[in-house]
Amino acid sequence: MESFTATAGRSAEIAAAVTQHPERFRVLTGERPTGPLHLGHYFGSITERVRLQQLGVETFLVLADYQVITDRDTMARVRENVYGAVLDYLASGIDPERTTIFTHSSVPALNQLLLPFLSLVTEAELHRNPTVKAELAASGRALSGLLLTYPVHQAADILFCKGNLVPVGKDNLPHVEMTRVIARRFNERYGDVFPVPDALITSTPEVPGLDGRKMSKSYSNAIALSMTPDQTVGVIRQTRTDQDRRISFDPERRPGVSALLSTASLCLGVEPGELADEIGHGGSGALKAVTATAVNDFLAPMRARRQAFAADEDLVRTILRLGNETANTVAEATLAQVREAMGTIY
Amino acid sequence: MESFTATAGRSAEIAAAVTQHPERFRVLTGERPTGPLHLGHYFGSITERVRLQQLGVETFLVLADYQVITDRDTMARVRENVYGAVLDYLASGIDPERTTIFTHSSVPALNQLLLPFLSLVTEAELHRNPTVKAELAASGRALSGLLLTYPVHQAADILFCKGNLVPVGKDNLPHVEMTRVIARRFNERYGDVFPVPDALITSTPEVPGLDGRKMSKSYSNAIALSMTPDQTVGVIRQTRTDQDRRISFDPERRPGVSALLSTASLCLGVEPGELADEIGHGGSGALKAVTATAVNDFLAPMRARRQAFAADEDLVRTILRLGNETANTVAEATLAQVREAMGTIY
Repeated sequence: MESFTATAGRSAEIAAAVTQHPERFRVLTGERPTGPLHLGHYFGSITERVRLQQLGVETFLVLADYQVITDRDTMARVRENVYGAVLDYLASGIDPERTTIFTHSSVPALNQLLLPFLSLVTEAELHRNPTVKAELAASGRALSGLLLTYPVHQAADILFCKGNLVPVGKDNLPHVEMTRVIARRFNERYGDVFPVPDALITSTPEVPGLDGRKMSKSYSNAIALSMTPDQTVGVIRQTRTDQDRRISFDPERRPGVSALLSTASLCLGVEPGELADEIGHGGSGALKAVTATAVNDFLAPMRARRQAFAADEDLVRTILRLGNETANTVAEATLAQVREAMGTIY
Repeated sequence: MESFTATAGRSAEIAAAVTQHPERFRVLTGERPTGPLHLGHYFGSITERVRLQQLGVETFLVLADYQVITDRDTMARVRENVYGAVLDYLASGIDPERTTIFTHSSVPALNQLLLPFLSLVTEAELHRNPTVKAELAASGRALSGLLLTYPVHQAADILFCKGNLVPVGKDNLPHVEMTRVIARRFNERYGDVFPVPDALITSTPEVPGLDGRKMSKSYSNAIALSMTPDQTVGVIRQTRTDQDRRISFDPERRPGVSALLSTASLCLGVEPGELADEIGHGGSGALKAVTATAVNDFLAPMRARRQAFAADEDLVRTILRLGNETANTVAEATLAQVREAMGTIY
C-alpha cells in the first residue's frame, strides 16, 4: 500500500492539474444521511464540491444510506435526512444538472461490485483501516459485518463511476488508499477496468462544534443549515463559555469561546484572533450576539434559496429520480465491463 | 442461534411436510462452478433436487460464480464450468421449466441484499462459521473479505427468492442457521419480509473419492459426469488399491478398494459388502473392471442425454438467460420490499 505521505505529497500537484484540466477528472464524494447537514459540512466539504463543479469537474454525489447502519440499528429518518441533504445541496449551489446526486440503495449494480472487491482484500487489511477502528470505538458496539467492510463499499462508490479524484480530509486518506489497492489488484488480475483514483486533500478548515469538539450531529453541537434564525440563536446561546469577559482565541483552554470565534470568523471571512480583539471585553454575551448575527447573515441567502426549493414538492424527488437513473446507467456499464473482464457473461 | 441439534431434530418432520404439501416450499440450492460436476454431486445433491422437483417443490438453483474466488485468485474456466453444470443438470433430470437455474453474478438486486444483511451480523459471528474456518484452513491463504462474508452471501441467495427450505448435508447446517438469524433479525428490525428457512438434511450417502477421501475436484479423485467411458475406465484404473486378492469393504484399512466398492455399489444399488463377496478373490483387477462397468452402465443414459443437449449450441445460453430473467424479476420484487421496509424509497 502506498504510504499516506506519498499521496499527501502529490496533492498540490493534483490540485494544480484539476484547475488546468478539469475535464480529465471525475469526482466521487458524498455522505451518510445520518442527520441534517451543518456548517461543518458546508465549510468542510460542500464549498469544495461547488468549487470543483464550477471548474467543470464532473461530480457524483452519493447519499450513502446503507452506511447509516454501519454503527447503529435504525434507519428512522433516513428519507427525511436524504431529502434535507438534497435541499441543502441545492441551497449551497450544487447544480443537479452538473452534479449527479444519487442514493446508495438505489443502484444495485454499484452494490454488486462489493462481491468481487471483497475478494481482493484480506480481513487483516480491513481491520487496519483507522476509520473502521475509530467508528467501532465510538459506537461502543460489536463490530458489524457492514462496518468491517465499509472501506470496500467506499471503493465501490468511487469506482462504479470510475471516479479518479476523491476530495477528502486527511482523516479519510486511508479509504482512498484502500480504493487504490482494490483498483490496482482488480486491474492486475482481470485487466484494466478501473482508474487508480487520487485523493484531493481539502484544505478547508475544520469547523469545531459549539463545545469545541468536532462538529457532529451526534454531539448536538452543530448548527444545521436547515435551522431557522431563531433556532440558530438558541443553540449559540446554549454554548458553554466562561466568566472571563476578555474574549480571546484559545481552543485548548477556552473551547466554547474559541468555537464561537471560529464559527463567526468563518462566516465573516476574518481571523478568529482578529475577531476576538474586536469584541475585546464584551464577554460571552457580546460574543454570542456577534456569532449569531454572523451565522444568520451568512446563511440568509442560502435559507431563502432552500425555502424556495422546498416549496416545490416534487423537486427533490425528481432530482433523486434523475440522479439515480444516471447512476444506474453508469453502474450497469461498469458492471458489464467487470463481468466481461471476469469472464462471467453467459 | 438455535442449536444445530434442534434443527436436525425437525428434519424428519419437515421431510414429511414436503411430501404432503410440496406447494408450501421453495427451495434454494446450488454450487460453486469450480470444476466439472461429479458422481459425488450426483448422489449427494442432484438426485435429491430431482426428487424435490418431481414432488412439485419450486426450486431455485444458483451457480455461485462469485463464490469461486472466496478461496482462489482465478476465474479461469468459470464459464466453461457453468455451461458444463447446466448440461449435467439437464442430463440428470433437472427441468428448467420447473427449476430456475441462474448465475449469481447476473442478479444485482440479489447481491445488493448483502449490504443490509451485513449490518445484522457481527464479525465474531462470521468467524464462528465452521465452513469459513474449514475453507480458510484448506486454502492456506489469508482470510479474504469475500470468504469471511460467505455465510451472508448464502443468506442473500436463500432469501432473495424467499426460499424456506434448504437441502443440506450436516456440514452445511451452520449456513442455514446464519440465514435463519439474519431473516429473524431483519424481520424484527424492519417488519416481516423474509421466511425463516428450514434445513432439509439430505440422507443420501457420501460418495468417497477414488482415494478414499471426500470426492472433490481439487483432489483429482472424482469421476466427472462429463467424462467419456474411456476416461472413466482410466481414472478407475489409476486408483491405488493393494495386493490382497480377497476383496473386502474396510474403508479404514483399505481406502482405495473400499472407495471402488462404494462407487460401484451406489451405481448398482447394492451394498458394498455384498458386492465384495461377489467379487471374492478376484483381486483389484476384477474390482476395477466391475466398477468401471457399473459406472459406465449407470452413466450411459445420462451421457446420451447430455450429448443430445450439448448438440444444441444455444440451449444452455437460453436456459441461463431465461433463468436469470426469472431470478432478476424475483430479486427486484424482494429488494423493493426490503427498501420499503427500510424506508429507502425516495
